[in-house]
Amino acid sequence: MCVPALPASHPLSDGRTATSPLIRAYRGERTATPPVWFMRQAGRSLPEYRRLREGIPMLDSCLDPALASEITLQPVRRHQVDAAVFFSDIVIPLRLAGVDVEIEPGRGPVLGSPVRTADDVARLAEHRLAEEALAPITEAVRLTVDALGSTPLIGFAGAPFTLAAYLVEGGPSKDHLRARTLMHADPDAWRALMEWTADLTGAFLRAQLLAGASAGQLFDSWAGSLTRSDYLSSVQGASRRALDAVRDLGAPLVHFGVGTGEILADLRDVGVDVVGVDWRIPLDEAARRLGPVPLQGNIDPAYLGAPWPVLERHVRDVIERGTAAPSHVLNLGHGVPPEADPEVLTRLVRFVHELTP
Amino acid sequence: MCVPALPASHPLSDGRTATSPLIRAYRGERTATPPVWFMRQAGRSLPEYRRLREGIPMLDSCLDPALASEITLQPVRRHQVDAAVFFSDIVIPLRLAGVDVEIEPGRGPVLGSPVRTADDVARLAEHRLAEEALAPITEAVRLTVDALGSTPLIGFAGAPFTLAAYLVEGGPSKDHLRARTLMHADPDAWRALMEWTADLTGAFLRAQLLAGASAGQLFDSWAGSLTRSDYLSSVQGASRRALDAVRDLGAPLVHFGVGTGEILADLRDVGVDVVGVDWRIPLDEAARRLGPVPLQGNIDPAYLGAPWPVLERHVRDVIERGTAAPSHVLNLGHGVPPEADPEVLTRLVRFVHELTP
Repeated sequence: MCVPALPASHPLSDGRTATSPLIRAYRGERTATPPVWFMRQAGRSLPEYRRLREGIPMLDSCLDPALASEITLQPVRRHQVDAAVFFSDIVIPLRLAGVDVEIEPGRGPVLGSPVRTADDVARLAEHRLAEEALAPITEAVRLTVDALGSTPLIGFAGAPFTLAAYLVEGGPSKDHLRARTLMHADPDAWRALMEWTADLTGAFLRAQLLAGASAGQLFDSWAGSLTRSDYLSSVQGASRRALDAVRDLGAPLVHFGVGTGEILADLRDVGVDVVGVDWRIPLDEAARRLGPVPLQGNIDPAYLGAPWPVLERHVRDVIERGTAAPSHVLNLGHGVPPEADPEVLTRLVRFVHELTP
Repeated sequence: MCVPALPASHPLSDGRTATSPLIRAYRGERTATPPVWFMRQAGRSLPEYRRLREGIPMLDSCLDPALASEITLQPVRRHQVDAAVFFSDIVIPLRLAGVDVEIEPGRGPVLGSPVRTADDVARLAEHRLAEEALAPITEAVRLTVDALGSTPLIGFAGAPFTLAAYLVEGGPSKDHLRARTLMHADPDAWRALMEWTADLTGAFLRAQLLAGASAGQLFDSWAGSLTRSDYLSSVQGASRRALDAVRDLGAPLVHFGVGTGEILADLRDVGVDVVGVDWRIPLDEAARRLGPVPLQGNIDPAYLGAPWPVLERHVRDVIERGTAAPSHVLNLGHGVPPEADPEVLTRLVRFVHELTP
């Protein structure tokens, strides 16, 4: 192979994380109790995060290695979760490639100039992600992995469609109509856009894995707005292409999208080891649709605000249904809500760790 | 029966609309080509609407009978659609019951005080919808029906869950987390809230039907955020109760929600004549899940911005798939987007009307 595999000092190669509950479950091995982490565990729900971020714009905080590393570590220290997930933002690779993008607090990513035409796509595609530009990511991952020891770090990348939706809309949107219109109105421009975003996000994930992340998760947050037919014809190939950039590394790969019950098997068929399931589909039903593939999920975040006995009953139900899959990593079915009480998350992790199988 | 049935002068009783393509299709009769109308056809996409609304707050415009009627008629005149849909807002019954609610432009409904606790629900439930309060609705419907002649008017009502989501969140929200948390955290308060909203929205729809609407559509915009199990245990009964308020009138009833592929059959089982399908599920697949029930939908609004031949191909495909159902009313799979070109909608209606079956 002409591409470098994981270095011998990588946590997956040197024994630090390869036998951790998370990696074993991601590899399909049933663990006594499911390992647990939370999407969006790093960030907005934690007071220590809000203190650290005071006055620092979101994307700047992602690109300050010491800060990004500290934010990534905070929930591991606090909740004792079984994995860290790299603190970043879906648009960080755009910023690193020189695209004019900012995060507006309370709104989300906003592009300087939306990508709406074939010419816009051609101009966008002139932006290249230089190896050096990834240095803050690589450095943040190294710092984090050194501090984590045997706890694995999960690399983070947005899927091409979700990135493209931000690029075309110019900001957050409800049904990603403009992006989906471009898909139908100009399939060639769409393909070029998706290939560019696929290569960009693939390089971003590869940098994290090479620097020490033990697994990678592709987030296709908006894939649930697509018909299955559009997903198959105009999106799936680009997600596969993004992951093609990291397959040779041999780290387990996870694929997750919200509201994707209709395309669960298609998310799997991008070629991943684990499928993340949102809160809408019970895990036993997901297992029925997917066959023998490890699952991740899917506590309904709405239960986090309910009294403990109600949440506990729900968590037990999720774990019970998860036994329908070969292995199960417990998670929320969506990101931690900003208003979630961190103490509830800590209690939840302790409860799961103390479960007798 | 102790409740009044439709008066003899009602358009469904006196022969004006009973044999219209829309009502025949809603009753399960296959029409030569599908009748067509568009959710949200009245309103924001039309320049004549924006002129008319200038300086008039949204809820005021809904409660001015002449204005609401004119807005309802505008798209019928312009596009020659096969039905009018009553111009209103999902929170209008709340306003009529004296609840402090306003529409913030660009944001949506905002409640003066969100309903978060059992006490809040009890206070809310003291609000009653008086017969007199419905006068502007009744009057607007009468004016509209008089002008429409043989074109049927579809009555509009929000489903209890969607109304409850606004009440609990206090405004628009993404996953309706607070509402879904209340559902789990305090099932008794939830039930009381849902019964109150069911009775409210049922009375609102009944007023429209009695005043001359020939069909009624229940919009459960947010039902797609629910698991099937939550829909069945905590939502479906209230939607059934809302429609129980109008069943004796014998007008066809339609049920629609966005992202509801997992609960399509449960929407049907509330007891309706027609199921509306969003753009995500092809109609032949919906027919497979639902069995022999008339379908409404489901042009993907993303195609409205594509070149005509691309849109035409998509519309032909939707119509073709719609033949899997006993009858089909063509519509979008979601509301008309604000930025839609009205001329495209007019062309689409003409195209469908000129199709040779």
